[in-house]
Amino acid sequence: MTDSRFFRRAGPFTLAQLAEIGGGALGEGTPADRRIVDVAPLYRAGAEDISFLDNRKYVSAFEASTAGACIVHPDLADKAPSGMGLILSAEPYRAYALIAHAFYPQTMERSGVSPHAMVDPTAKLGADVCIEPGAVIMENVEIGDRTQICANAVLRPGVVVGADCYIGSNVTLCYAVVGNKVWIHGGAAIGQDGFGFVMGPKGHLKVPQLGRVVIQDDVEIGANTTIDRGAGPDTVIGEGCRIDNLVQIAHNVELGRGCVLVAQVGISGSTKLSDFVVAGGQSGITGHLKIGAGARIGAQSGVMRDVPAGQTVIGSPAVPAKEHWRQIGVVERLAKKHGGA
Amino acid sequence: MTDSRFFRRAGPFTLAQLAEIGGGALGEGTPADRRIVDVAPLYRAGAEDISFLDNRKYVSAFEASTAGACIVHPDLADKAPSGMGLILSAEPYRAYALIAHAFYPQTMERSGVSPHAMVDPTAKLGADVCIEPGAVIMENVEIGDRTQICANAVLRPGVVVGADCYIGSNVTLCYAVVGNKVWIHGGAAIGQDGFGFVMGPKGHLKVPQLGRVVIQDDVEIGANTTIDRGAGPDTVIGEGCRIDNLVQIAHNVELGRGCVLVAQVGISGSTKLSDFVVAGGQSGITGHLKIGAGARIGAQSGVMRDVPAGQTVIGSPAVPAKEHWRQIGVVERLAKKHGGA
Amino acid sequence: MTDSRFFRRAGPFTLAQLAEIGGGALGEGTPADRRIVDVAPLYRAGAEDISFLDNRKYVSAFEASTAGACIVHPDLADKAPSGMGLILSAEPYRAYALIAHAFYPQTMERSGVSPHAMVDPTAKLGADVCIEPGAVIMENVEIGDRTQICANAVLRPGVVVGADCYIGSNVTLCYAVVGNKVWIHGGAAIGQDGFGFVMGPKGHLKVPQLGRVVIQDDVEIGANTTIDRGAGPDTVIGEGCRIDNLVQIAHNVELGRGCVLVAQVGISGSTKLSDFVVAGGQSGITGHLKIGAGARIGAQSGVMRDVPAGQTVIGSPAVPAKEHWRQIGVVERLAKKHGGA
Repeated sequence: MTDSRFFRRAGPFTLAQLAEIGGGALGEGTPADRRIVDVAPLYRAGAEDISFLDNRKYVSAFEASTAGACIVHPDLADKAPSGMGLILSAEPYRAYALIAHAFYPQTMERSGVSPHAMVDPTAKLGADVCIEPGAVIMENVEIGDRTQICANAVLRPGVVVGADCYIGSNVTLCYAVVGNKVWIHGGAAIGQDGFGFVMGPKGHLKVPQLGRVVIQDDVEIGANTTIDRGAGPDTVIGEGCRIDNLVQIAHNVELGRGCVLVAQVGISGSTKLSDFVVAGGQSGITGHLKIGAGARIGAQSGVMRDVPAGQTVIGSPAVPAKEHWRQIGVVERLAKKHGGA
Repeated sequence: MTDSRFFRRAGPFTLAQLAEIGGGALGEGTPADRRIVDVAPLYRAGAEDISFLDNRKYVSAFEASTAGACIVHPDLADKAPSGMGLILSAEPYRAYALIAHAFYPQTMERSGVSPHAMVDPTAKLGADVCIEPGAVIMENVEIGDRTQICANAVLRPGVVVGADCYIGSNVTLCYAVVGNKVWIHGGAAIGQDGFGFVMGPKGHLKVPQLGRVVIQDDVEIGANTTIDRGAGPDTVIGEGCRIDNLVQIAHNVELGRGCVLVAQVGISGSTKLSDFVVAGGQSGITGHLKIGAGARIGAQSGVMRDVPAGQTVIGSPAVPAKEHWRQIGVVERLAKKHGGA
Repeated sequence: MTDSRFFRRAGPFTLAQLAEIGGGALGEGTPADRRIVDVAPLYRAGAEDISFLDNRKYVSAFEASTAGACIVHPDLADKAPSGMGLILSAEPYRAYALIAHAFYPQTMERSGVSPHAMVDPTAKLGADVCIEPGAVIMENVEIGDRTQICANAVLRPGVVVGADCYIGSNVTLCYAVVGNKVWIHGGAAIGQDGFGFVMGPKGHLKVPQLGRVVIQDDVEIGANTTIDRGAGPDTVIGEGCRIDNLVQIAHNVELGRGCVLVAQVGISGSTKLSDFVVAGGQSGITGHLKIGAGARIGAQSGVMRDVPAGQTVIGSPAVPAKEHWRQIGVVERLAKKHGGA
């Protein structure tokens, strides 16, 4: 059961309804009219809850679960405890997500402009926006319909934010043009000067940073992540990207559509990622590189060369995955053989 | 001498008093009634200051110090310059901490609710709380006695914070239940959505994040650290944990009691640390792992497998320490032998 | 063309004027009176724009550019497309920076103290300061002439900031003394308690952190970077340092003049960097080390030993660059030879 201080639940639903919502099929013998009131993790779900099994690490939790129903891949259905209702799906996690959205529809927490927000009179606000207390909306900012600007966020002069966006508390946005349905979590800093200067033995000369940050539609950006604006070109975050917490994106970087950057990734200046690149946690990509579509970069890897489309690279410096594991293996064997000598 | 713009000092104390406070013994020939007015580092301490020697790297600074007194391990007492008073302790750093607390007792900087704080009328405030200007306390928040909420911190709806806590400036707290005596430094973002979505070739589907962050008593959390709330289970930070700056803790992670996470550590989703695990700076732990009690993870290590209790692992991928150093050694030797060829 | 929502341009200038501003010479046949209205990247510059070529990766973009003029090293002048005006410089990037400053002089966005700022009556404000809405200036803070404090920044009691500084939105400053011409970008947290405690099996005892952060003149600090105050000594950032986003600097660290720390670097307690040290992205330096003047630390490196002046080290653990590449090479060769076996 979710904590009612934080979550408001819809429902209940029958299993037949949930199967339809989740795009799955009822398992053999599953009562279509069983009433389900909530989603819950396997270990905690009770007779009126629905849970899901996705990661095979949790099969034993599934076998021991007292959930009233569970979403599961057909291949694992026979491991279900007796009496558990089943919704069968080739993509149980996706089905769960759809069902969880039904129980917990995303609705804005409140709306209207707080009298304790500071909104410059030149700002243009869309319909049904929510501007919370302490938010600062500066000159010539534009905010689209139904967008929520959380407490103590700052939108600096000229910033544009589209419709249906969520800008978290203590976020700083400057020199940025943001599309629709963009989520930016608390504390992210977006649009500040890139790290541009000319090094010299007597001191470093700052280079004016004259580009913007352009964030396309349907992007999620994690807490305390930083995205610098371009030096001349723009820094661009493509449609549908998912960026985790504490990620660093330098000036002029371009991300294609649907890229996934796990926490603490760093991307140096002017590097370009094509569509659907995935970078594991704490990995880094040096500047001025091209990473091909669908490439995958292992956690903690350090990429120093272009990566072709579809390739998986690992290690620091990063090499193709097979080569990396071969290197790891050969060093392990040598250490076992000679290491003690 | 500390900067009086920032620190207010108690005292003076005699060496006899300080020996008692610190749980140490006066060295031979040390004048029990010597008056000490402050603590100071070895290189800067004068005749009325007390310093300490803990890290043996600083023995020469100890030998050259003009401190009126010093806390030192009995084994090093004979290296003291003549005339220096000594407090002998098997744990000089602990004794120093106790004595420094006597000179600089932690007291709240001020109290009361600032007229420039924004406190929702439904919030429940304990006795003697301090809510600074610009802080935003939203609907149904509960704050315990003597807790300080610093300027421009945001406590989003429903958040609970216990007694004797310190919530730093520009902190964002949401979906969180916080115990007593918890310190959260400036800019930390706690409780936002975990990085949960179903990847797909046409786009990524967000998965509702329905858990909380639960922080137990006596925890310290560093500046700009991020802790995501659980996806269904809670994210839990155990009693007495110490978390440094810029650490990332993903959804569903559980830390046992007394864990220590050095700066820029990242822990992926659903991983569980038992009590008193120590993770070095910039290390990462992948998801769904179990790290046993008292395990130690080297700086910059990348942990990809469960770690048994008490084991020290290093490297990326992390292996037991002895194996790691053997691998490093064998590669060094080979590079010397064949590398130039 | 820059986005007029964000940037205000000076000019136009003739090429003769720009050559003088940039300290370069007009190329042969370049019309001294050609009128230039803006700077722009090579791929986007038109007949009235000036661009620059610095990184040889972009020679083909130079050859294809339609820029009215370009700043270029004399060695590459012969690759210019016909009709392009040239400013020749041995340091094209420096010349570009000077010229870009002419088109986009740094001017404060606005000035005066916003009625929505919260300024304690004991604070001392210099002439022509700008304090934006939501900024909180606490007891006994001092702010120098022409300094800008951005919206929702917090300067905690006693903080001193010099003249001509820029303190970004949502920055937290405490226990800090800041010089002149210092830029601190959004969300940085500076001066909070260092990570100091005595570990013990029953719990960890906090050690009072009694030093400050001292930031000398002409320093730039990136977004969401964290700098802890000293434990007794001060944490010191030397004149002219450039610190990128999400960098962690622990208590008692000292940086000499002109150090450059790229994003996500971490420096552990009490380590001292001499002048003009450069640390690549995501590198880490363990505690109590000395890094000599002009040393260079590779990206993602882990430094565990002192580094002599002028040396370049790479790897984790870091070794001299030549040794590192030799190690990488020998492992690659072995993996190719034996890896498949």
